[in-house]
Amino acid sequence: MSTAPDIVEDWRVFATDHHLAQVALGDDDAVVTWSDGRETPLHRFFLRDNCTCAQCYLPLTREQLFEITDAPADLRFAGAGIDAGGDLVVDWSDGHVSRYAPGWLRECAPDAVSRAERHADRARPFIWGSEYADALKSFECADIMADDHVLLDWLGALRSAGMTLVKNVPVAHEALLAPIARISHIRETNFGRVFDVKSKPRADSAAYTSVNLPPHTDLPTRELQPGLQFLHCLVNDAVGGESVFVDGFAIAEAMRRDHPAHFATITTTPMAFWNRDDRTDYRWTAPLIALNADGDLAEVRFANFLRGPIDAPAERMDAIYAALRLFQAMCRDPRFFIERRLAPGDMWAFDNRRVLHARREFDPQTGERHLQGAYVDRDEINSRWRVLSRQLGDLR
Amino acid sequence: MSTAPDIVEDWRVFATDHHLAQVALGDDDAVVTWSDGRETPLHRFFLRDNCTCAQCYLPLTREQLFEITDAPADLRFAGAGIDAGGDLVVDWSDGHVSRYAPGWLRECAPDAVSRAERHADRARPFIWGSEYADALKSFECADIMADDHVLLDWLGALRSAGMTLVKNVPVAHEALLAPIARISHIRETNFGRVFDVKSKPRADSAAYTSVNLPPHTDLPTRELQPGLQFLHCLVNDAVGGESVFVDGFAIAEAMRRDHPAHFATITTTPMAFWNRDDRTDYRWTAPLIALNADGDLAEVRFANFLRGPIDAPAERMDAIYAALRLFQAMCRDPRFFIERRLAPGDMWAFDNRRVLHARREFDPQTGERHLQGAYVDRDEINSRWRVLSRQLGDLR
Repeated sequence: MSTAPDIVEDWRVFATDHHLAQVALGDDDAVVTWSDGRETPLHRFFLRDNCTCAQCYLPLTREQLFEITDAPADLRFAGAGIDAGGDLVVDWSDGHVSRYAPGWLRECAPDAVSRAERHADRARPFIWGSEYADALKSFECADIMADDHVLLDWLGALRSAGMTLVKNVPVAHEALLAPIARISHIRETNFGRVFDVKSKPRADSAAYTSVNLPPHTDLPTRELQPGLQFLHCLVNDAVGGESVFVDGFAIAEAMRRDHPAHFATITTTPMAFWNRDDRTDYRWTAPLIALNADGDLAEVRFANFLRGPIDAPAERMDAIYAALRLFQAMCRDPRFFIERRLAPGDMWAFDNRRVLHARREFDPQTGERHLQGAYVDRDEINSRWRVLSRQLGDLR
Repeated sequence: MSTAPDIVEDWRVFATDHHLAQVALGDDDAVVTWSDGRETPLHRFFLRDNCTCAQCYLPLTREQLFEITDAPADLRFAGAGIDAGGDLVVDWSDGHVSRYAPGWLRECAPDAVSRAERHADRARPFIWGSEYADALKSFECADIMADDHVLLDWLGALRSAGMTLVKNVPVAHEALLAPIARISHIRETNFGRVFDVKSKPRADSAAYTSVNLPPHTDLPTRELQPGLQFLHCLVNDAVGGESVFVDGFAIAEAMRRDHPAHFATITTTPMAFWNRDDRTDYRWTAPLIALNADGDLAEVRFANFLRGPIDAPAERMDAIYAALRLFQAMCRDPRFFIERRLAPGDMWAFDNRRVLHARREFDPQTGERHLQGAYVDRDEINSRWRVLSRQLGDLR
């Protein structure tokens, strides 16, 4: 075992209660045994790929310079050991030497037990129904502006429940931008950086009329629907126009449990969504409910008023319409939705790829109704949440 | 057959050379026979769902008001016929009457022959290798600004080859925004609306150093990588720093053909990409090559310097590294890449989710090098292309 150069400080931040007890070399794998008896096989290319010496990494940006395709195909272990500091040190057949901190190795260990632990540790969404009306997470705008801990709580609630209320956002044009700027830049669309929701004489979207808008996600016509939506109430004098919210993940899990055949249909049938006016022609096709590679819920995509004709084999239509009709019926089921009237200064903030929102019909003759909205993508919420968690000590 | 109200003009724009010859009613389907003998079964809910009468549709926004879940489960055909104008007219068991234009019916007919025709008609990417260096689509900035036909050609080339050069963009700060504004708004990121590529003393990304940047897509750390990238050269006086481009779709198709097992691995193994600095912490995990539901290439996602440790079962590592090493090696194969030195005023415009770009190392001591970049998503390119095609007569 050679004396390996030290590694960049970053690879030391991963904490572990366990230490490396021994290492045994095979042809393809170095198998380390931990103090708790766990065994982790580490493939030669996996280890060589993750060498963090100053030659393989650019310390300034903490980015990899080495490319694994440059390792010789017959690269072999020439030796390996655990040094006095507890690091794994590997000598390579081509003369290179690498060093690995135990915390990092445990963090990304590819043995089955470690992988199952990581999977089990992942955050799960908090799924809700109508009872959430009384438990709705509510935040004061001034607190979000002044206190990073409140900001972190708000982002945590958006990641978990996907639905929050912010109170006392100043009743002023584009005042919603200040709390949003605490998170990141906004996601611009063809409707602008900030969009105004009010009845317009020449509406290019049902949103800009006074009709009932059934539960929907915004912009299902885009490959990536906006992740978070912010809807700030400036005026709400008209009769009607109540806000309705449905946790699409609750409906999805209820379908998965009670109607598995319909769930299979709705998660695999591409649905077309179109939105076309004189200047734009947006179209996207994807299943109404998308799962990730692990089968967990990834997103809901639905706006009945933007749906194009279903393009599926004729013999599949019966099953597809049964699943679609059930999904729509469940969106109206009182077990699933909460309904609330916005007051000026209130701002809804919700996950637009999960929580469907609806608006009851209103009568524009009885008074003005004016909301302003904006979008931020999930990437930005998650990035900001990770940085704050790190800074405030909740996360490495 | 009742007298049905006329339909909104939009549903008349679909042209067809064929007319409806007859209609036969079953329990679930109305089967229409076309003048060319084709038979199309139309499910009762498919037809009811697509009723475009003024009661079911909002003519102002051309959006659906009716929700198919409101159709009675036992909805039946009470009668159907082809009227004097050639439309299909359906009487429903609940008294509603619907009318369908033959062009629209043919356009979205769900029989197997019509569906196969539509699939065959879809645009296929033009895939290129090093020979494209001599055929590279090049456009004059002034023409893009002045002529919608040139704009449409440019967008067509971006959709097809995914790689174009724009010449004589004014050499001025943010001058790239003018041709981009001919398309749409831009995709903002944490690097700003416009980002500057030059060597920086406190670089937060390898892009902002002078090192060799191997072939990569930008921002693989985001759920949706930016679709189109624009890179405008303001100064290029340093020795080195040549631009290299690789059509990732060419590599993917070559892998699919010559190394099917590696292709299967690379299209199904999630790879982690991380980008972390003091203010942001972006992470996304997805296969290096993504296919759509039809098995066609959807995107390439790769930046070696942003790749996190591979999280896969230990026994899969050998296959995964073999596929990854092959992919990297192919990116360097002279058959696949084009290399060019940018001159001030040149602007690359390319599909960032398909075309990998690289930069040779340069020597910042020998002169200045300064590019400005911006992103636009595929949705915007496609929307603008559809509208222009319609306006200029190439598309319905």
